[in-house]
Amino acid sequence: MHPLAERVLNGERRAIARAISYVEDDHPDKTELMRDLFPHTGRAQIVGITGAPGAGKSSLVDVLIRYLRQQKLTVGVVAVDPSSPFTGGALLGDRVRMQSHALDPDVFIRSMGSRGSLGGLSRATQDSVRILDASGKNVIIVETVGVGQSELDIMHMADTVALVVTPAGGDAVQAFKAGVMEIAEVFVVNKADLPGVEKVITELEQMLDLVKHDAEWRPPVVKTISVQNSGMEELWKAVSRHHDYLKQRGLLEKRRRDHIRREVAEIVGYHMQQWVRERMQNIALDPGLDPYTTAQQLLQQIINIRKHEEERR
Amino acid sequence: MHPLAERVLNGERRAIARAISYVEDDHPDKTELMRDLFPHTGRAQIVGITGAPGAGKSSLVDVLIRYLRQQKLTVGVVAVDPSSPFTGGALLGDRVRMQSHALDPDVFIRSMGSRGSLGGLSRATQDSVRILDASGKNVIIVETVGVGQSELDIMHMADTVALVVTPAGGDAVQAFKAGVMEIAEVFVVNKADLPGVEKVITELEQMLDLVKHDAEWRPPVVKTISVQNSGMEELWKAVSRHHDYLKQRGLLEKRRRDHIRREVAEIVGYHMQQWVRERMQNIALDPGLDPYTTAQQLLQQIINIRKHEEERR
Repeated sequence: MHPLAERVLNGERRAIARAISYVEDDHPDKTELMRDLFPHTGRAQIVGITGAPGAGKSSLVDVLIRYLRQQKLTVGVVAVDPSSPFTGGALLGDRVRMQSHALDPDVFIRSMGSRGSLGGLSRATQDSVRILDASGKNVIIVETVGVGQSELDIMHMADTVALVVTPAGGDAVQAFKAGVMEIAEVFVVNKADLPGVEKVITELEQMLDLVKHDAEWRPPVVKTISVQNSGMEELWKAVSRHHDYLKQRGLLEKRRRDHIRREVAEIVGYHMQQWVRERMQNIALDPGLDPYTTAQQLLQQIINIRKHEEERR
Repeated sequence: MHPLAERVLNGERRAIARAISYVEDDHPDKTELMRDLFPHTGRAQIVGITGAPGAGKSSLVDVLIRYLRQQKLTVGVVAVDPSSPFTGGALLGDRVRMQSHALDPDVFIRSMGSRGSLGGLSRATQDSVRILDASGKNVIIVETVGVGQSELDIMHMADTVALVVTPAGGDAVQAFKAGVMEIAEVFVVNKADLPGVEKVITELEQMLDLVKHDAEWRPPVVKTISVQNSGMEELWKAVSRHHDYLKQRGLLEKRRRDHIRREVAEIVGYHMQQWVRERMQNIALDPGLDPYTTAQQLLQQIINIRKHEEERR
């Protein structure tokens, strides 16, 4: 076993931090590390929290952590901001949170910004969640800013996705158009002390009528006021009810299996792409041929090139 | 030739709009269309304009279009916002711009939001630029919001990348950290009527000393005030000087060849991924095996599976 894997399994804080850096930096030992950790994953409950900027996700997560700690649950957080060039805990909201949980050995928070190569952020996030899982954290929160495609992709790894909206500014309509309504299993109306709460709840319920969800799970709408530390119990109850629902119907297992399939396909596709990219240097391109036709021809050649290479060895 | 391709080559506005919808929606005729258009591309000058939200890119592009029209140049714009769920010209800044150029048949503006599958936005943007190129537009502007990885990827297709910053709020430092400094060939200090202009220029020049650029092209810093319609001539001069510089050294051709190689690799990788994803349904996963090891095993099997399939046909 990789020595770092052993230390991660022991829950050593510095080992977790280093392991996450390994996956961020695509360290040569990464695959060995992930291979060693994998058999020890699958125990944590993974919660995705998403919503538009300004919905108050960071402080919501902060108070949720506090609530979970009161329940004697250990917590890992991966905060993802694809639009941020910063990484390694440098996000503003994160620094604040880190401070408030800095002395708690059972809370681990890490930020991920945009960096690395294709699919790098999504890849690094998935691996980080697995590292935290293997380290023994009971609950892992994946927080993403915004509602773009990459955020939707990242959310695939969560057991339960909570969408945070506020009474202000048509968040619900926005989420509806962005296709986030379809993936959210719990709706959180944060800043529920602001006017317009009931209106946004009605809007959400109306939109939920239109959106095709799992027949047996209609997403509940929960009100929270994170600055007042209010609504956490309800939020956590809703998340746990969804988790139980998945477990009882064997859906949790299915969901995680599907996610691994997706991951495998991603990794394979990425490697094929790298492989093609390297080969491209030595392949003469027909300048009159468009990329799609060239790609098609290459796809057919790939097998022959590989066969030839294997024979040469 | 695909009938739509013919109409695009004639510069028909509605045909261009429909062709872009084809690439956005991954229409079955897309590859045929792109194949037919490809031999007619490569004539347009492609300019990338990027920068943080709030830098005033939209209005800058608006006044730049006006300037280019005065020079009798036809213009295509693809405005990309990966964080937006909207598409098809629904972005706010765009609606304003569209109004101001709506009656000009020689300006075509299209917005792209986040949608479609993996790499969908970047793919659709590249194809859209090619459609506008084939339609005979002289200048194509690719505008991206933010400085994430997807924006960097998109910028690969531009001949010249202009980075827009403002005197406010440490934009330059931000861009430096995000790795955008490395890809920008022209720097635009917009809102140059605000205090702090000289300070940000000094900052930029200092950072340019640190960043490795093409030895013979040091990015110029241009001041603009888009609300006053000021600085457009200088901006366009700087962009054109860079374009001439590339052309004279044979770098433009090289750049475009490199970009096509990258595109081909992307398409091949994407198809491999789709192919693997479909196969994954029928492949039994070893539940104790991590995604990386499974992917590795699959990569080795791929060739055999394909061979087998070909033999069956």
